[in-house]
Amino acid sequence: MASTEIEALVQQLARLPGLGPRSARRAVLHLMKKRESSFAPLLAALQTVSERLVTCGICGNIDTQDPCAICADPRRDARSLCVVEEVSDLWALDKSRLFPGKYHVLGGRLSALEGVRPQDLSIDALVARVAAGGIDEVVLAMNATLEGQTTAHYLAERLEGYPVRLTQLAHGLPVGGELDYLDEGTLAQALRARRPMG
Amino acid sequence: MASTEIEALVQQLARLPGLGPRSARRAVLHLMKKRESSFAPLLAALQTVSERLVTCGICGNIDTQDPCAICADPRRDARSLCVVEEVSDLWALDKSRLFPGKYHVLGGRLSALEGVRPQDLSIDALVARVAAGGIDEVVLAMNATLEGQTTAHYLAERLEGYPVRLTQLAHGLPVGGELDYLDEGTLAQALRARRPMG
Repeated sequence: MASTEIEALVQQLARLPGLGPRSARRAVLHLMKKRESSFAPLLAALQTVSERLVTCGICGNIDTQDPCAICADPRRDARSLCVVEEVSDLWALDKSRLFPGKYHVLGGRLSALEGVRPQDLSIDALVARVAAGGIDEVVLAMNATLEGQTTAHYLAERLEGYPVRLTQLAHGLPVGGELDYLDEGTLAQALRARRPMG
Repeated sequence: MASTEIEALVQQLARLPGLGPRSARRAVLHLMKKRESSFAPLLAALQTVSERLVTCGICGNIDTQDPCAICADPRRDARSLCVVEEVSDLWALDKSRLFPGKYHVLGGRLSALEGVRPQDLSIDALVARVAAGGIDEVVLAMNATLEGQTTAHYLAERLEGYPVRLTQLAHGLPVGGELDYLDEGTLAQALRARRPMG
């Protein structure tokens, strides 16, 4: 149909999460019709990011600067450290702007199945950050999966003895969650952690 | 959260049809995590297309070559010409590989409301192609909208007198369409064009 170059572009775009072949095609058409207002700015933005992409040497975030925008921000509370599995978790949490502190990205989770061991994650660096002092609280914001929770427990062991408060994200009903549709595990957690009425 | 360059990229991607801010963010994260396998090839594909994009001087298709891949393809039946409103319509039709002929893109539809007049569309070029001979059939594949059908009727008038067969896409029930959910206009068309049982 179209030339091989355009087909190649459609295929590359179709590999992005959230896009399939159909929407990739529509996106390419959109770009080709709006060359000045869409194609050129997108290409420029991609080029800029591609040239400048670095992993933050402090927290493991991916950014266009090292230290990343979060680590470099003096308004953020350096005494609170939130540990996450992946950069995507950092972004998801930070989008809400609810956490005022800094982050530490492990780069994965411990997994016997996938052969991910402690030395494969950025755990020594985390311990070193905590050992360096100045941190009051470490939030272990792992996913609520078996592997995430195993990782959290391992980290808690590694951080034992340091003068920091270890906390975890609350488990329970998601906002808008209907009991009828929730899995037993979530219900069990919510029941176990039940609180007195406000 | 992220640096301004990454935010700018997210915003550019979010403007593509089918992507919103949330999926654009996920796509950017995906690209940043897979720099070698995703980011670099996508950037290269976009650059190639961006450098070579041209509008086909014959049919109005957008491609990386002029004449476009379809016009240049000797296996396609030059005696059949399918007239469409937009390049996206050409792609949608040609994806199915059901039409073996060539295309002509009008670049829009006649619209009193939007002030689109015949001279704003590639109609003279269409008449010239037909007048040049060698074409047996012209399929007026306009959208099944009021403006699309107005345009088709105008084209039929303009092509009167030339030795070509003018045809139109069939109107009726879409495949899988349930009477209960279809609009009255479609039902009226389907009833009016009813055919004897095969």
